[in-house]
Amino acid sequence: MLGELVLVRLKGFDKLSSVDEALSIFHCQLKLDRMSSTWIPTIRALGQVVADDIFAGSDLPPFDRSAVDGYALRAHDTFGASQFNPRILKLTRNDKLGENQAREIWTGNPLPEGADAVVMLEHTRLKTSGLEVWVPVTPGRNVSKQGEDVRNGDLAIQSGTRLKPHHMGLLAALGLTRVSVVEKPRIAILSTGNEIVELGHKPGFGQVVGVNRIIISCLCQELGADSVDLGIVKDDSDEIAEKVRGALERTEMLVTTGGTSVGHADVVPATVNKVGAPGVVVHGIAMRPGMPTALAILKGKPVVILPGNPVAAFFGFEVFARPLIHQMLGIRYEPRPTIVVKMTEKAPSALGRRVFLRVRVSQRKGEYFAEPIRIKGAGILSTMTQANGYVIIPEVCEGLEKGESIKAHLFDKVEGEKHV
Amino acid sequence: MLGELVLVRLKGFDKLSSVDEALSIFHCQLKLDRMSSTWIPTIRALGQVVADDIFAGSDLPPFDRSAVDGYALRAHDTFGASQFNPRILKLTRNDKLGENQAREIWTGNPLPEGADAVVMLEHTRLKTSGLEVWVPVTPGRNVSKQGEDVRNGDLAIQSGTRLKPHHMGLLAALGLTRVSVVEKPRIAILSTGNEIVELGHKPGFGQVVGVNRIIISCLCQELGADSVDLGIVKDDSDEIAEKVRGALERTEMLVTTGGTSVGHADVVPATVNKVGAPGVVVHGIAMRPGMPTALAILKGKPVVILPGNPVAAFFGFEVFARPLIHQMLGIRYEPRPTIVVKMTEKAPSALGRRVFLRVRVSQRKGEYFAEPIRIKGAGILSTMTQANGYVIIPEVCEGLEKGESIKAHLFDKVEGEKHV
Repeated sequence: MLGELVLVRLKGFDKLSSVDEALSIFHCQLKLDRMSSTWIPTIRALGQVVADDIFAGSDLPPFDRSAVDGYALRAHDTFGASQFNPRILKLTRNDKLGENQAREIWTGNPLPEGADAVVMLEHTRLKTSGLEVWVPVTPGRNVSKQGEDVRNGDLAIQSGTRLKPHHMGLLAALGLTRVSVVEKPRIAILSTGNEIVELGHKPGFGQVVGVNRIIISCLCQELGADSVDLGIVKDDSDEIAEKVRGALERTEMLVTTGGTSVGHADVVPATVNKVGAPGVVVHGIAMRPGMPTALAILKGKPVVILPGNPVAAFFGFEVFARPLIHQMLGIRYEPRPTIVVKMTEKAPSALGRRVFLRVRVSQRKGEYFAEPIRIKGAGILSTMTQANGYVIIPEVCEGLEKGESIKAHLFDKVEGEKHV
Repeated sequence: MLGELVLVRLKGFDKLSSVDEALSIFHCQLKLDRMSSTWIPTIRALGQVVADDIFAGSDLPPFDRSAVDGYALRAHDTFGASQFNPRILKLTRNDKLGENQAREIWTGNPLPEGADAVVMLEHTRLKTSGLEVWVPVTPGRNVSKQGEDVRNGDLAIQSGTRLKPHHMGLLAALGLTRVSVVEKPRIAILSTGNEIVELGHKPGFGQVVGVNRIIISCLCQELGADSVDLGIVKDDSDEIAEKVRGALERTEMLVTTGGTSVGHADVVPATVNKVGAPGVVVHGIAMRPGMPTALAILKGKPVVILPGNPVAAFFGFEVFARPLIHQMLGIRYEPRPTIVVKMTEKAPSALGRRVFLRVRVSQRKGEYFAEPIRIKGAGILSTMTQANGYVIIPEVCEGLEKGESIKAHLFDKVEGEKHV
């Protein structure tokens, strides 16, 4: 028994897949559909993803309207006007302007019939004799033409757009009380490990509170997916298999953490392979942290098997699960905010591995700097809270020099900026 | 009556306050307290703001543990080891190691008593004679020491931190099932204007659907504040006064839109002044868009009076309301993501005004570019959905040159980036 165990252990990951290979293998074998769509009230749609192209059903503005406070008039009545030779127009309150007439108008008001321009308040003076107009205006001046913002039939919002506050304004302006959005994918999250206890239970010696389910469920929440908590199971193949089967029934994707080292601790990939085909398609990835990550497919659904290490799990999720959730939501591309930073010190890498280096990005005198967060193990949670982003050191790179420029991906705000 | 009206209109904003003056006047006269705190379950705390410094009540890790898969041993038993001259140790399953003994250990497992280091799996070979160790390890090697992540009593998370997924992991690791967060401020939102109709009602000629309440309520939601919808009222001082009084009873801040031009359309500032003292402290700000914005204080509470123009309202909210919400939440500083961009074309400005220029930021060959979104009026909603950010052109600047570098503030994602 010991001999057999050792044999398995020594096998290790003979061959690691590169991150790009892993993504390519996984995505080629997965035929992932976008979730179906559902109609919801517009006022509850913030953060949701538009399912179908939205075309305008009316013009915006719905009528010619004034873009300023001033007087609506006929442009040709102002030709030749100057401060020394003002044109005098007759004020009216009629809905229809005659020749040499003007009507006061406020921003947003519809242009009265007959008017074709607006002169700004400050270019006029009201006298007992009438309205003095000091400048000539051309037809259309200070007028927002009907349909100039959005024309009836125009594509107003593209499918795959995640609704931000400014989109919500456009939806409302178009009079859309309901909007068709992509249903939230359900992501099952399972934590494995004999040493893991539930938050709220006091860990005994050698035990720790499981944090991965919470972190991953929050990452799903931020992405607009629903997480389904499958709890914690021991490193027991039968228990794990039952949870995996349940997840395949009820959810669109399964994320597990723990039990994915080589050797006796690879219980999750081994169990997934027993549950069905094709099972694990990638195991062992040339990345740091996150090397023991495995990717599997069961019943056409993705199973992302992450290491138990919280930081490794975070990056495994970032690289492999996040794009799948985007795909299920029909979002083509939604990167984290990035910024070009200068390294404050040398950061060694690992040739042949893609290294995700946690950094603290800060700003000094208009320049952005990234300080690498020194770590001893990927389980160090406080380094995640010290960091606000990460830089990616490519496989072909031996490390970063002090002062080198590189792009940082931000998962939290950058301190020390001023607004201007 | 007409004469009087004209007199008022021509007054205009004789003097505009600069943005900085306006902020300074407003903040000096407002004594805004942070909201009180409330205990909530940790698992529901994502996005909330930590009310009090959180100190660790235990060490993390809670015990010395292995950072790798391998064998726990006594470091001095490996001194002098090499591949040609391996040390041979005796494998044990005891909880206590004797001299020249080793015990298999997985990442995260507690170190057995007597062990002071871990040798990695790949630096060993298991033979019938025992465990061959090929490299010497120093004491502490591959061990995460108890408390090395967080020490009992350490400040783990600072008050004022908005909880992101990685903070949630740390809270869980510390065994905190509940967390004290800042209560959400309630922001009353009132829309004014005779021409505004509710979403869901068909606008008649000259009418438009009110979009500001929706945009502003979404902006509040993104900031973690609760919005209280006061609906739409006509440009009627009595109706407005009633809503304002109600808001002062029930909420921490009031945001209004519309009715803040000069002249007969300044019904909101005029009404606010009738409701109480000090009332309006700033009216007319040297910014574009957003010039007619007014700032008031009633019963010690901020009243932000925004133009009816959706884009002007957006920027008025951005500059004046957003920092107040941060203050009420106890967040010192939470900027939008920023990025340095090159202007793709010349953008004129208005000397003496702070101009908020909507731009579309995109990336090409590792560089970021900002294309100004041409507009005719600040009411043009589609320009907000074309834009994903804005640049701020300072008052002293006559405009931006093509190719000029400037910082862009992003309110939506940047297209065209690749992950590496």
